[in-house]
Amino acid sequence: MPSPVPSSAPSGLAGALDDLGCVALLVLAESARDPDVAHFAGALHVGRCLLVLPRRGAPRLGYFTPMERDEAAASGLRLLTPHDLGLPRAQREGWSEARTLAAAASAALTASGAEPGRVALAGHGPAGTYHQAARQLAGAGWSPVDGNDLARRLRKRKAARQLAGIRRAAAGTVTAFRRVAELLAAAEARPRGATTANTGATGPDLRLAGEALTVGRLRAEIAAVLAAHGLEQPAGNIVAPGRDAAVPHSAGRDERVLRAGESLVVDLYPAAPPFADCTRTFCVGRAPEALVAAHAAVREALDGAHRSARPGVRGADLQRAACDSLEARGYPTLLSDPETDRGYVHNLGHGVGYELHEYPSFRKQAGAEGVLEAGDVLTLEPGLYDPAAGWGVRLEDLVWLRGERAGETAAEILTPLPYELDPRAWAG
Amino acid sequence: MPSPVPSSAPSGLAGALDDLGCVALLVLAESARDPDVAHFAGALHVGRCLLVLPRRGAPRLGYFTPMERDEAAASGLRLLTPHDLGLPRAQREGWSEARTLAAAASAALTASGAEPGRVALAGHGPAGTYHQAARQLAGAGWSPVDGNDLARRLRKRKAARQLAGIRRAAAGTVTAFRRVAELLAAAEARPRGATTANTGATGPDLRLAGEALTVGRLRAEIAAVLAAHGLEQPAGNIVAPGRDAAVPHSAGRDERVLRAGESLVVDLYPAAPPFADCTRTFCVGRAPEALVAAHAAVREALDGAHRSARPGVRGADLQRAACDSLEARGYPTLLSDPETDRGYVHNLGHGVGYELHEYPSFRKQAGAEGVLEAGDVLTLEPGLYDPAAGWGVRLEDLVWLRGERAGETAAEILTPLPYELDPRAWAG
Repeated sequence: MPSPVPSSAPSGLAGALDDLGCVALLVLAESARDPDVAHFAGALHVGRCLLVLPRRGAPRLGYFTPMERDEAAASGLRLLTPHDLGLPRAQREGWSEARTLAAAASAALTASGAEPGRVALAGHGPAGTYHQAARQLAGAGWSPVDGNDLARRLRKRKAARQLAGIRRAAAGTVTAFRRVAELLAAAEARPRGATTANTGATGPDLRLAGEALTVGRLRAEIAAVLAAHGLEQPAGNIVAPGRDAAVPHSAGRDERVLRAGESLVVDLYPAAPPFADCTRTFCVGRAPEALVAAHAAVREALDGAHRSARPGVRGADLQRAACDSLEARGYPTLLSDPETDRGYVHNLGHGVGYELHEYPSFRKQAGAEGVLEAGDVLTLEPGLYDPAAGWGVRLEDLVWLRGERAGETAAEILTPLPYELDPRAWAG
Repeated sequence: MPSPVPSSAPSGLAGALDDLGCVALLVLAESARDPDVAHFAGALHVGRCLLVLPRRGAPRLGYFTPMERDEAAASGLRLLTPHDLGLPRAQREGWSEARTLAAAASAALTASGAEPGRVALAGHGPAGTYHQAARQLAGAGWSPVDGNDLARRLRKRKAARQLAGIRRAAAGTVTAFRRVAELLAAAEARPRGATTANTGATGPDLRLAGEALTVGRLRAEIAAVLAAHGLEQPAGNIVAPGRDAAVPHSAGRDERVLRAGESLVVDLYPAAPPFADCTRTFCVGRAPEALVAAHAAVREALDGAHRSARPGVRGADLQRAACDSLEARGYPTLLSDPETDRGYVHNLGHGVGYELHEYPSFRKQAGAEGVLEAGDVLTLEPGLYDPAAGWGVRLEDLVWLRGERAGETAAEILTPLPYELDPRAWAG
């Protein structure tokens, strides 16, 4: 693993910049939690900042308020102070945000020894202000081109520090799933109460210790477990029963009472700050035949993906194999019908890091960013859905690719958990 | 309060667009948690999306994957489907992200009935990709100008739904502070152990139930309380003892053992998704004279700010009054020395909403966005710091301005808590 604190340009940078005809990568960010900053600087408690990665020489981190000097210093990077960035003058003269940013970026590029020319612009922030700043920067001789993809490619392989954060997030996720299974296993089915509207699901309502078991109750337990692990859920989570389970991105409503015999998709993606990502599907009580069959098919597709996910393999080929596997079982997929909302309606996986969706890409059109490499952290997550019938099933593991050494398996599952629909099968 | 789900253009939009010579506000966002989306659409579980607010007529929300149709529908806004945005073709033909976005934005603007012309660009996302998309959009006849400030001004006054979220975040924050005070009140001072490095602070280490009381322990308790309230800390928090307390944005290190006689700044800003924001400063045991005096001075400045924070008042005038109050007590401020890192080194407050730092602005240069109005939610947070001596004190309240009606106070403190340094004074 390369050092988490680069004292020189990260490997691959010079070639990628040459491909774009750029002299430097310029990252503008509203906070050091921006994945294009955090990957290179670690997770710092710093607000608006910028990062310059010149074609040659050391990266430089610029911070915007003197109050954040100590936090910025924790990066171990060479720093550019607010004074270096010309901010006191901008503030004194009441410059617009865009003009201030353009001047700061220009000062940072100059300080980094980059000659005027094209710069690859990355980072994340206010669309209009950054666009205006980029136009002003072009006027000053630094012509910005889209560098977000370049930054994403540099972030593909995880260094030891980021991997440690992902492991911490994954460990909390595993504990949260165990807690969910425990609660579901302890739930009892009671005939539906008069107050519960019939929204199309079958089966009696679930109760736990005399109270209706709701999506909100599971969410509260999940949040407590994750908080105890020092994790946050900046992008929320999915706890989706019945018809919500049948639409992959429906998050589930807190007040919804869970029912026996329905599918419950639980997809957790907490952050340490780097993310983990894992999904399991449950069914309390007797599962309908269609759900049992779909679960077995998804499990088979996932097993196949685990066997094939190795450095050098293309994500798109894994997606193709998952489609083939599910079609052989009789389910429609995006391969046979690109507009289907029934069957297998999404991609097999994605990279995970300081951003929830990173490279490797599983898209057919992907180039090098679609090839799995040692150091990648990625999800494998086949699923099947039937909106008309009101069920969905998805199984998702988080995997770290170690590479192929003698006597070693190439991949490690960071979220080792049972796959069973029945939460009682999770015990022990 | 205006309706949280606008079925027509929000008030103030047409005039603001006219000032910029724009036909519409165009918001590009990576998720519906983007404050420029959430303010108008509510907190939805939707990924990449766009919002068009035309000069006349209904806002439209465009979502990018069919899987999110139900979540997008929860906004109550008119929707633009991935098909309406031309995404299937873009995907089929392998367009770049920037080209796809530009085409989607162009389709959305056309569907909203806006004539080609200048558009105010807002929202937040990848700097390079959005810049490239904006240039392509300009080529298609829609010329983007910086609209982030316009969006921020539209977000200044909070509607009922957002205020309810802020109240929920504030209630959890208050409970978390009570828990911190409880733990600190129960802590005992023991002579410093041999394993603790002397980092300049005075006073013995604090212990709780036989264990060293660390920053990390307090953070764990805070996270548990906030999680139980359904809150997240997407921007972290500050639990800063001693020398960290002396630099306003230092977050504090988990492993640091707290000490008697030192200042401890606790600044919490959890999200519901809208944020709350509150700070208190503690000192266990006998507080040094300088800290006691600074605390009294900060308290006086805060009281003055509370008395003066009314609709129609400028934030900059409140800041000026806080500086005058603290200078009268002999402390340096940014007014007397713009580059000081001792004394009062930051601004008095900021608006709070789906973004942690919003309007009203307390900056001297602010125009209309610097004038307090009924419906604003803002912080008041004077502080004093001495990096050389290693202490800091800040007191921050979150305030909602109701306006002036007969028999009503104009402002409500959403974070009602004691101000005392001594946690034992918080009981009861």
